[in-house]
Amino acid sequence: MANTRVTHIYFSSACAKVAFGSRIGENGGLGIGINTIVRAKTNSGRFFEDFRIGETIRHATPRTVTTGDVALYNGLFGPRFALQSSDEFARRIGYPRSPLDDLLVFHIVFGKTVPDVSLNAVANLGYADCRFLKHVYAGATLSAVSEVIGLKENSSRKTGIVYVRSRGCDETGEPVLDYVRWVMVRKRDEGAAAPAEQVPQLPEAVPASALGLACPRIDAGAYDSVLAGTAHRFGDYTTGDKIDHIDGMTVEEAEHQIATRLYQNTARVHFNLFAQSKDRFGKRLIYGGHAISLARALSFNGLGNAFHIAAINGGRHVSPLFAGMTVFAWSEVLETAPLPGRDDVGALRLRTIATGDRPCGDFPLKTGGDYDPAVILDLDYWVLIPR
Amino acid sequence: MANTRVTHIYFSSACAKVAFGSRIGENGGLGIGINTIVRAKTNSGRFFEDFRIGETIRHATPRTVTTGDVALYNGLFGPRFALQSSDEFARRIGYPRSPLDDLLVFHIVFGKTVPDVSLNAVANLGYADCRFLKHVYAGATLSAVSEVIGLKENSSRKTGIVYVRSRGCDETGEPVLDYVRWVMVRKRDEGAAAPAEQVPQLPEAVPASALGLACPRIDAGAYDSVLAGTAHRFGDYTTGDKIDHIDGMTVEEAEHQIATRLYQNTARVHFNLFAQSKDRFGKRLIYGGHAISLARALSFNGLGNAFHIAAINGGRHVSPLFAGMTVFAWSEVLETAPLPGRDDVGALRLRTIATGDRPCGDFPLKTGGDYDPAVILDLDYWVLIPR
Amino acid sequence: MANTRVTHIYFSSACAKVAFGSRIGENGGLGIGINTIVRAKTNSGRFFEDFRIGETIRHATPRTVTTGDVALYNGLFGPRFALQSSDEFARRIGYPRSPLDDLLVFHIVFGKTVPDVSLNAVANLGYADCRFLKHVYAGATLSAVSEVIGLKENSSRKTGIVYVRSRGCDETGEPVLDYVRWVMVRKRDEGAAAPAEQVPQLPEAVPASALGLACPRIDAGAYDSVLAGTAHRFGDYTTGDKIDHIDGMTVEEAEHQIATRLYQNTARVHFNLFAQSKDRFGKRLIYGGHAISLARALSFNGLGNAFHIAAINGGRHVSPLFAGMTVFAWSEVLETAPLPGRDDVGALRLRTIATGDRPCGDFPLKTGGDYDPAVILDLDYWVLIPR
Repeated sequence: MANTRVTHIYFSSACAKVAFGSRIGENGGLGIGINTIVRAKTNSGRFFEDFRIGETIRHATPRTVTTGDVALYNGLFGPRFALQSSDEFARRIGYPRSPLDDLLVFHIVFGKTVPDVSLNAVANLGYADCRFLKHVYAGATLSAVSEVIGLKENSSRKTGIVYVRSRGCDETGEPVLDYVRWVMVRKRDEGAAAPAEQVPQLPEAVPASALGLACPRIDAGAYDSVLAGTAHRFGDYTTGDKIDHIDGMTVEEAEHQIATRLYQNTARVHFNLFAQSKDRFGKRLIYGGHAISLARALSFNGLGNAFHIAAINGGRHVSPLFAGMTVFAWSEVLETAPLPGRDDVGALRLRTIATGDRPCGDFPLKTGGDYDPAVILDLDYWVLIPR
Repeated sequence: MANTRVTHIYFSSACAKVAFGSRIGENGGLGIGINTIVRAKTNSGRFFEDFRIGETIRHATPRTVTTGDVALYNGLFGPRFALQSSDEFARRIGYPRSPLDDLLVFHIVFGKTVPDVSLNAVANLGYADCRFLKHVYAGATLSAVSEVIGLKENSSRKTGIVYVRSRGCDETGEPVLDYVRWVMVRKRDEGAAAPAEQVPQLPEAVPASALGLACPRIDAGAYDSVLAGTAHRFGDYTTGDKIDHIDGMTVEEAEHQIATRLYQNTARVHFNLFAQSKDRFGKRLIYGGHAISLARALSFNGLGNAFHIAAINGGRHVSPLFAGMTVFAWSEVLETAPLPGRDDVGALRLRTIATGDRPCGDFPLKTGGDYDPAVILDLDYWVLIPR
Repeated sequence: MANTRVTHIYFSSACAKVAFGSRIGENGGLGIGINTIVRAKTNSGRFFEDFRIGETIRHATPRTVTTGDVALYNGLFGPRFALQSSDEFARRIGYPRSPLDDLLVFHIVFGKTVPDVSLNAVANLGYADCRFLKHVYAGATLSAVSEVIGLKENSSRKTGIVYVRSRGCDETGEPVLDYVRWVMVRKRDEGAAAPAEQVPQLPEAVPASALGLACPRIDAGAYDSVLAGTAHRFGDYTTGDKIDHIDGMTVEEAEHQIATRLYQNTARVHFNLFAQSKDRFGKRLIYGGHAISLARALSFNGLGNAFHIAAINGGRHVSPLFAGMTVFAWSEVLETAPLPGRDDVGALRLRTIATGDRPCGDFPLKTGGDYDPAVILDLDYWVLIPR
């Protein structure tokens, strides 16, 4: 798995190939864990020793996304990108209507992987090579499949790191999203034999040449900057620009619970105060993706024309987010890139830092080698913006 | 009213017969209560002495249910049954698209009855003979009508028990849901004459032969157990099986208020902290149906293919649920039953127990003759599951 | 701008005229403020000295309203007016289907004006001459444009009052809503020269002859009072009637945040606990429109057939509303008026008073010349009701 492109190609029809008709039992010899689960009737989740390199996991609960989901997403995060807000605006620039927010697609696909991949996770360690591959509209039915591409037991032998490449597909079987994430997963039995260590080589960033599949050619001349809320386009941003997004957004328990249930993400730490109150933090942990969505919505103030997330190069949930905290964010332009063969949009590679209870006017990041204690998210991603 | 089947037949066209055109005033002699209410312009609700045996009450506020309501329901409870989640999954097995969650239908119909039946209720005592009669889709307009089928004054003469058979209908006038509930209602005036006591005979359970009207024949072969999230079907469950649903879900005030308003349920105890803070509990009481929906969503873990609630035999809200509590649940299979003439689905009669702040690994229920103090809900119902 | 009628006419095609294609830069000499903002890439909002009499501001973020938004609005406020609740009910009386709640339209249009008009507002001082001009349905795309019609620096020279006439339009460019509001806005620089004072003459109330544009002729005979929940029609109300709406509704932080984000209203005081905790109240302020929507929903109990808000004559947010408070309301009928040429509906001019943590059985309003300390809202508006 040294080359993620190979994975990409291999996966290109994965959803379609395994789409319908097989029962869990037919996974056969692959899954000790899953057969155990089946016998117990309830899902206790896979443990580290249940994963096998090359194993393909079709995730449960396909989901038809509706304008109702969009409304709830809007109510929870308050995004203001005109493309996703107005069917009329979308049509003028060349979309059939408003596409779904990229992160709503991400969260729904991600949510499906949780019961199979990270129910027994200690920590969500990272994302890489996340590419949005197709524009998605209300009415689409999303499903997800993952391949185990890396396994590495930790020296404690109590946990191990699982790398999966997950893909979200729509009802036609076409991929809409593809990404790698790695999580630290508990072992059921410390004495269990560990599989041979295999760590995938992951790209540091998605190349600009791979961007834009989920963005149809737009009519940049018809893109109305006044309605969009800002005049700044591709050419107005320069590598090294730092932008304080100014606004702050406080998170409530009900909000993150509603969001995370909407994605059918079942990770227990988000919902179960009874259990969490006995845990080290003593409270519910907010799904990391909630911080990403808040940072993205806040980033409108300064990046209002960056209407599409084309890829996520990497991300780190530096510190947990808890209800009651107010999230702020700032961004740095890491790189600006034209898209090969396209003069309608360009790409900005951004690093967005989100903090808890700390305004970002002075662009907090690290002091010495360590993150500023207020930093909760460090996200590296590509956005598209009209030229 | 000794025979609920007779009631059933009598009611079969009730919604259609009284559907449109009459004013409240035309109810004529039926309603002392309602005329009083009319004069005051505001609705203070019926008191015990306002009900008459045989009286038919058409409830206000018909409601067109949309995919927006579905999204909110999903965000509030996080159900993962594939049929209701994916139009594509639904079509494969023979539905035109995803039907509404049965409990969303129940709550909306129930909500309509509150202003007329239980605004002055002291307690919601029970449900019986609740049958889901037609699959319902987003776009349907639901309305409700109730018949008073029993009245019994309490010995204190301060309250009485009112039995109503309520029916929800869609915009064609066809019934989608039919159930009996009984509530303890305050008297306006202790000295008021009580009507002759009449208590309906109610079935202990809906017979299996009456199940399945709201479930079209499905193609069980096309039912994809991997996408559904579990392989267990009808034949895998046995009378006496106990299943701990493992997960816990904490409830927030905003969540139950949003849910209960969504159903247009106006019971004051759920929304009015100012009044409740002076009451015996000192806080808002959560609508009992919220606990049912949480228990149902939690039951996915262990009963993931039980895609349809066909009937509710009885239910008891053992203790109140308050915000901040974490709900857990477990189920026992009381009975397994084939459906006459159908080889696509079978029925499981379940008893699901929900608790507050108490995991259910040891199946808490009663100690001595009393409920375990953590138990909040004891629900007896039928689900359908593919064979 | 002494005559608001002239403004009305001038504005009648405002949305269409400036609808598409211009960039912010093309506003040219009009906006010192906006060019400054552009250079900073982020929007810090206009200050008092940035406004010019006669300036037209096209607001950002057009918004396609969906049934998802309606569901969320219903979940947050629990309105029960049958017209907006049931497509079937709407069709029977002559609408093509359920229109959007008038206040949902108002809040969405209002929200668009915030980033340009009131981001640096100290206080929202008042509304006048607000008229609903067209019935709006899910699927409509709303946008907004404002004209600055008055400016008056305060004697402190630290702030000034800005009067804007704002208009909401649908995707055809037709106006759906038109209103004046005035806000006290901070100056960026106390020493900045103030524009010549100009204060518009505003009508004390919208005349009855201007009402009803957003209400098609209805079939009052087909209006089913039982389904609507009350029998009282136009003729049952008399000037001077006082109605206690009885019920109370407690507000949670998550609720008002979700609502206000849904409207893409970006006023910081509603969302940023970190900043607000350092402010005089020490907590988040709830958007004033939230209180209006709650009062309107509560007013169903007593005014259940008042299915349409035709105009808002004036409104005052007397005291702030905070999460945890329970809102009550009462109304007085200020005037009853037939609509010229229409025998289907009549108009009631209402004054609705909302309070926090104080039931309204004794109609609290003022003691001496001051408002009762519990009063939070004093709203003067016209509703339509079947005859």
